[in-house]
Amino acid sequence: MSLRVDLNCDMGESFGAWTMGRDAEALRNVTSANIACGYHAGDPGVMRRTVRAAHAAGVAIGAHPGLPDLCGFGRREMHVSPAEIEDMVLYQIGALAAIAAAEGTRLRHVKPHGALYNMAARNERLAAAIARSVAAFDRDLLLFGLAGSALLAEGRAAGLRVASEGFADRAYEPDGSLTPRSRPDAVLDDPALVVRRAVRMVTEGRVTATDGSEVTLLVDTLCTHGDTPGAQALVQRLRAGLEASGIAIMRLDRDGSAHA
Amino acid sequence: MSLRVDLNCDMGESFGAWTMGRDAEALRNVTSANIACGYHAGDPGVMRRTVRAAHAAGVAIGAHPGLPDLCGFGRREMHVSPAEIEDMVLYQIGALAAIAAAEGTRLRHVKPHGALYNMAARNERLAAAIARSVAAFDRDLLLFGLAGSALLAEGRAAGLRVASEGFADRAYEPDGSLTPRSRPDAVLDDPALVVRRAVRMVTEGRVTATDGSEVTLLVDTLCTHGDTPGAQALVQRLRAGLEASGIAIMRLDRDGSAHA
Amino acid sequence: MSLRVDLNCDMGESFGAWTMGRDAEALRNVTSANIACGYHAGDPGVMRRTVRAAHAAGVAIGAHPGLPDLCGFGRREMHVSPAEIEDMVLYQIGALAAIAAAEGTRLRHVKPHGALYNMAARNERLAAAIARSVAAFDRDLLLFGLAGSALLAEGRAAGLRVASEGFADRAYEPDGSLTPRSRPDAVLDDPALVVRRAVRMVTEGRVTATDGSEVTLLVDTLCTHGDTPGAQALVQRLRAGLEASGIAIMRLDRDGSAHA
Amino acid sequence: MSLRVDLNCDMGESFGAWTMGRDAEALRNVTSANIACGYHAGDPGVMRRTVRAAHAAGVAIGAHPGLPDLCGFGRREMHVSPAEIEDMVLYQIGALAAIAAAEGTRLRHVKPHGALYNMAARNERLAAAIARSVAAFDRDLLLFGLAGSALLAEGRAAGLRVASEGFADRAYEPDGSLTPRSRPDAVLDDPALVVRRAVRMVTEGRVTATDGSEVTLLVDTLCTHGDTPGAQALVQRLRAGLEASGIAIMRLDRDGSAHA
Repeated sequence: MSLRVDLNCDMGESFGAWTMGRDAEALRNVTSANIACGYHAGDPGVMRRTVRAAHAAGVAIGAHPGLPDLCGFGRREMHVSPAEIEDMVLYQIGALAAIAAAEGTRLRHVKPHGALYNMAARNERLAAAIARSVAAFDRDLLLFGLAGSALLAEGRAAGLRVASEGFADRAYEPDGSLTPRSRPDAVLDDPALVVRRAVRMVTEGRVTATDGSEVTLLVDTLCTHGDTPGAQALVQRLRAGLEASGIAIMRLDRDGSAHA
Repeated sequence: MSLRVDLNCDMGESFGAWTMGRDAEALRNVTSANIACGYHAGDPGVMRRTVRAAHAAGVAIGAHPGLPDLCGFGRREMHVSPAEIEDMVLYQIGALAAIAAAEGTRLRHVKPHGALYNMAARNERLAAAIARSVAAFDRDLLLFGLAGSALLAEGRAAGLRVASEGFADRAYEPDGSLTPRSRPDAVLDDPALVVRRAVRMVTEGRVTATDGSEVTLLVDTLCTHGDTPGAQALVQRLRAGLEASGIAIMRLDRDGSAHA
Repeated sequence: MSLRVDLNCDMGESFGAWTMGRDAEALRNVTSANIACGYHAGDPGVMRRTVRAAHAAGVAIGAHPGLPDLCGFGRREMHVSPAEIEDMVLYQIGALAAIAAAEGTRLRHVKPHGALYNMAARNERLAAAIARSVAAFDRDLLLFGLAGSALLAEGRAAGLRVASEGFADRAYEPDGSLTPRSRPDAVLDDPALVVRRAVRMVTEGRVTATDGSEVTLLVDTLCTHGDTPGAQALVQRLRAGLEASGIAIMRLDRDGSAHA
Repeated sequence: MSLRVDLNCDMGESFGAWTMGRDAEALRNVTSANIACGYHAGDPGVMRRTVRAAHAAGVAIGAHPGLPDLCGFGRREMHVSPAEIEDMVLYQIGALAAIAAAEGTRLRHVKPHGALYNMAARNERLAAAIARSVAAFDRDLLLFGLAGSALLAEGRAAGLRVASEGFADRAYEPDGSLTPRSRPDAVLDDPALVVRRAVRMVTEGRVTATDGSEVTLLVDTLCTHGDTPGAQALVQRLRAGLEASGIAIMRLDRDGSAHA
């Protein structure tokens, strides 16, 4: 069986007069775009331009719903109920889907953003609420979540295909969770190391945790970043390294390879 | 040919901990619900509960998009561009449509709210932008607008079916526009007069303007209000008066009677 | 020494077109008004009208800063940093103080709202951040907090006079914290019991916890509620009960009785 | 009499995770900082850091209140009433003043932002509302407005000292208003021309309008821009050109030179 992986990137995170990210460059390097839906970032105009550009680039379009916190960029956890989460995710998916329809395309996946992603990784009730909202909107949408997370489990339980996400530039704890960004060693800076970890995630299904132990994880898609000056050089290096190891970079919806 | 008219009411205009309107009562009396979409009022939870209640009551569900101005309740005109309007209307329609889908139903119409409605009545470029967003999302949606307005003209030009709206409790200017609320005589208080004007709009296609002249207008749907204590008593009286004049109260999507 | 207590009530929690509370009635019964500052509720116009009415009624005016969450009414905890809290509390206090100045009056106290109040009751770093912002703005402001809370301790440590608040209609845990509202027995409905508990808090400095144990607490001010139809009848009964027990209802800034 | 002029720049227009402007550079070149107050841009943390940096740089600190429209950056006109304007300006001034107090400094001036500035230049009732809010908060604050505008007239009528602002890089209409940005020739690109116009505004009190006629204007302060890469090079050239013409660059509050 041939090896393959999807590369995703958060996009459309500008807002009004404020710009964030280098989406045009990122679209040349990734296969899935997670597009902000107005709650943590993005506005209807930004959403439309981002959808249009991703569609033109042949990149899969996904909703990137977040918590209602523009000032905190959706990174501050909020004590919201599962019912509130279900409705606000549905709202955001629908808003982006309408814009995609107006641009002659459609959504392929949903990846929660920031604090919502992290909360859904460990909280089963929130994870189930997100899964319900995705399934209620469109059962063919792929749900992206942290490898081994509650979100993937609840997505599968709701009958959704899920995509297991790996972070090649983040440290992992022995239990498979990401080392919190508040820790100094949370983000890996060495490009060669990042590429090696990415290749190993895809080919062996393993990553070394902070205590030296091995974490087993299936990876359908790798998270890349688009908001720093050197980010795209790293993504290009990652692509080259993956391909040199015989791994095809490919949209998930084109071959159904997600580990559902 | 039998006479018929739709009765519509704005709904779902609560927000978070704040309640507005008596939607449960209104749903017993009208045939179309215009549901706020989060910009001027409404939040995802309110939207969901309102969609569910309207669906259960057999009332047609419509999107009621507004300007992004919670504090002004969408009643303050803003100098937004046609492109901004197009994208923000699309966003709001999509958000409500997703919630409707999750509740097993779908949208039937779109009626802009407040300042957006008024701006679209007279500004052709904004009207065309709204019509484009509705047509891009779903060509089967009915577009509600003021009788004789630019919104209806642009809706027709975009290939949409439109519904011409009359206001039985509002004074009209000789040119068919509504007398601004800032004028003391803008709102009619006498229930008997309101009923007579409604009946005459439907049966004769006329209403007397403030200067005594006659305005010709076709009316597919009458606007009713749900936010004051006595509002529903007036709507019931209106229903009775219309029916006593041989006019059937009927959803527009059930018989296709809109004057498209 | 004569017994005395302040009665406070949250006010100015309307927003735009939405009304909450019966502030005019409440102002006849309480001695301190905690006025929302635009983050969880209130807008500049509501703030101004509320300040004007409180000033005219001779009621002490306080800032009631909250988390930036209109849709959640400031009741959902958010993971905000102490620095963020310090700056957002300062912002809100300053905004209300300017409005008070324009109305010819000034702030007397600060009482955090909802989730911010609860977080500051138990989290020393957030409590210290609030105390810093109050002290930086005006060292003469009185800081209201839950009796026995971290907020009062940090307020005193920052050199502020503090007012210890009791809740006569809420159940207490043995450790002096309020029983969470999610518990069925969290709110006491029996007016006679509420009055007895209030009197005992002021005269004996004690309240019976849910397990029957006695909690010791000093009470400078009692929280009353203004948002339900029967609320003011209860407050009037509370006033009568307190006065019948020889307790004077009196603004804290008039006699300096706060247990600082 | 010696010639002098103030140079002002809008600052603190970042928001949450989004950055705008190069405030640190601008603070080396100007004498007055107009700091956004959270309505069109800025958040409490951005406001505090900007106040601190301006204070450390010896630059005069002013409030830069805007319309409540983050997504439109306060550039979209809104039909707000004078009373609404008065209260929202007061709110924003107070919020920034509290932050300034916590940083050991105080406000020196108020300059409305964007659409609010433009509306107040021509609408006397809005201008008077702004003047009332400034005067109610602090009669020593200097009010910045377009040279010849209604805002300056109403500011003087309210007993305020005003500062008359010139735009060296903007085209003027014969009536002294700025040529709208929608016109292709609205912004002047030639640095030498911009410097010449600035010098002439200060030394002669004149600027050539788009039709070749001469507009008479008194200029206390010149607007500079901080949000484009080459902006500070232009400001440095402007400083050099003004000084070479014998014009001192000086804070207005230091010498009372405003043409009140």
